[in-house]
Amino acid sequence: MGTDIIDPWGATGIKDYQQTMEQFGIEPLADVIDQIPQPHRLMRRSIILGHRDFGRIAKAIRNDSDFALLTGLMPSGKFHFGHKLVADQIVYYQQQGAEVYVCVADVEVHNTRQVSIEEARDIAIDQYLTNYIALGLKPENCHFYFQSEGPRDYQVLSKLLADKITLNEMEAIYGDLEPGKIISILTQIADILYPQMKSEGGPRPTITPVGFDQDPHARLTRDVVSRVQSNYGFIKPSFTFHKFMRGLKGGKMSSSDPQSYIALTDSVQEALDKIDQAKTGGRDTAEEQREKGAVIEEDTVFEMLAYHLIEDDQELKEIQERYTAGDMLSGELKQICKDKMRKFLARHQQQRAEVEDRVDEFLN
Amino acid sequence: MGTDIIDPWGATGIKDYQQTMEQFGIEPLADVIDQIPQPHRLMRRSIILGHRDFGRIAKAIRNDSDFALLTGLMPSGKFHFGHKLVADQIVYYQQQGAEVYVCVADVEVHNTRQVSIEEARDIAIDQYLTNYIALGLKPENCHFYFQSEGPRDYQVLSKLLADKITLNEMEAIYGDLEPGKIISILTQIADILYPQMKSEGGPRPTITPVGFDQDPHARLTRDVVSRVQSNYGFIKPSFTFHKFMRGLKGGKMSSSDPQSYIALTDSVQEALDKIDQAKTGGRDTAEEQREKGAVIEEDTVFEMLAYHLIEDDQELKEIQERYTAGDMLSGELKQICKDKMRKFLARHQQQRAEVEDRVDEFLN
Repeated sequence: MGTDIIDPWGATGIKDYQQTMEQFGIEPLADVIDQIPQPHRLMRRSIILGHRDFGRIAKAIRNDSDFALLTGLMPSGKFHFGHKLVADQIVYYQQQGAEVYVCVADVEVHNTRQVSIEEARDIAIDQYLTNYIALGLKPENCHFYFQSEGPRDYQVLSKLLADKITLNEMEAIYGDLEPGKIISILTQIADILYPQMKSEGGPRPTITPVGFDQDPHARLTRDVVSRVQSNYGFIKPSFTFHKFMRGLKGGKMSSSDPQSYIALTDSVQEALDKIDQAKTGGRDTAEEQREKGAVIEEDTVFEMLAYHLIEDDQELKEIQERYTAGDMLSGELKQICKDKMRKFLARHQQQRAEVEDRVDEFLN
Repeated sequence: MGTDIIDPWGATGIKDYQQTMEQFGIEPLADVIDQIPQPHRLMRRSIILGHRDFGRIAKAIRNDSDFALLTGLMPSGKFHFGHKLVADQIVYYQQQGAEVYVCVADVEVHNTRQVSIEEARDIAIDQYLTNYIALGLKPENCHFYFQSEGPRDYQVLSKLLADKITLNEMEAIYGDLEPGKIISILTQIADILYPQMKSEGGPRPTITPVGFDQDPHARLTRDVVSRVQSNYGFIKPSFTFHKFMRGLKGGKMSSSDPQSYIALTDSVQEALDKIDQAKTGGRDTAEEQREKGAVIEEDTVFEMLAYHLIEDDQELKEIQERYTAGDMLSGELKQICKDKMRKFLARHQQQRAEVEDRVDEFLN
């Protein structure tokens, strides 16, 4: 596998975001952030770091004109703060006027993780949809659908697009491929383009917020669009790219390791215990910490605050300054995080309980 | 493309049926024909020449036990006698007790022949289904469905199977592949296995009657079955292989050349004119014909009689003997064919008119 390959199935991972952006022509979001009236905290903090064609979306937001958001979810395991990163963006774009499409990748999870279609459905609803609603997703202008049940136009699209792509081209982007991955890729391209079909009110600008590892799909989809122009008139889809949250122990956040994440359905006590165990950028001794300050880039607790628990930029900035200056120990930082986590989870879980019977509004 | 490759999309064609059977391990149908009580005329005349695992089907017919037939149709152009070859087998197996599945390849025709899904649907109903019914297909135990609308289990199956096949393996069977063909192959495997899913009452023996050019799908499907044994318990599907009817001018029968075929909706006069123009195996002069007899292997008019218009083996045999002995001229053979064609088309088209309003019984 050459250096031109990003593996969207997670075998490699992104080492250097800046280099990835330069290599593949992803633009800095900072260049366009001023074009929208209310940038999301993840944008303001450069957690959403890159974009392709975000200008189109900024314009739609400013002009209050038609655009769609679409995102996929892989129903497997518990819904944790890594997933909330995407959920927050879905809710944000809905508030900014987007028609929302959420595709449940039940077929893909069934193939790759030995989860039955029925089980996948239960997880998608109980773990994902219910949390989305508790986080603010509204049923108006929202399409929540399953890959296995997608409407006819959608099923046809993924097969039709197959004729527009060569295997050589796919392998140049993804490396060696097998039929299972080829099907995954085609299905994802169809997911991204589906809101632009005439039957859905397209063509129109669309935004798909993803992690950097999904850029191969973004590139290929944008290339394919020009080839089906005469049939569909699709507009090249827009993407933003966010950095990943690290796991609480410093490595990868992984659904198969419950100590690496906090689930939004974890009990408060479980969550606080995980914060107590979390890797920080604090120094070995209090003395050294006061002298040198924390290495904030390595601090998973600060990351939790920045990504999720502090909305106010000024408040975050003050904590960062004190912590890196050595005026705050990591125990103190953890206490701040625990206080905020306690409040967040209590409020979120109450909201979850209140909205649980509203899932049906999204399922028809 | 090596000699191990058969192209099921028709770019090459089968030169030598016997050699193909030996090379790919297709058994002679003659070996098993005695195992069924009422072999079809196409079997008795070795037009259906080969099989894989037909014994399983013969047993189900003898024991009156559960089995299914499945077949695909490519809705494009007019329904002609080349298509009737398959239709007759569908009706035959239904009469022998099979539950029938007919899959309309609307997605494939849409991709490969620029036919819209709506147009494909109209052709499938008006040209294929209506003729099937007029030829004797009954709505009981018959599933007539569209690739673009297939049920969830079916959609999932084609994607799930993708994971069980490597690209190397596919290319060893089909030659170089592009994503469009990979999708076609996977969809066809799912079509073949669909009647064996639990939701459809499977597993159970299935028969798919095809031309020799479709053997790559047969081989790959049978190979895949063993790999999904633990998930599905599928039985290896059975196939028969028939020779192709040649076009009336001696070359390939082609939907794009109306002089090469007789459509079942052609007027009697059109059909008779085409028979008048058809290539025969008669000699250049009457004298030479009386002396040497006809070259029956090259005679498309005799082929029409043998494939379609004469049910009685003895009657056919007598014509063959007189014709090859030089006791019959090709004009006389054509007159026999025209008389039978006139009767067939008059009766068939009357039946078509009578059943036209019955298509709805098949569409739900």
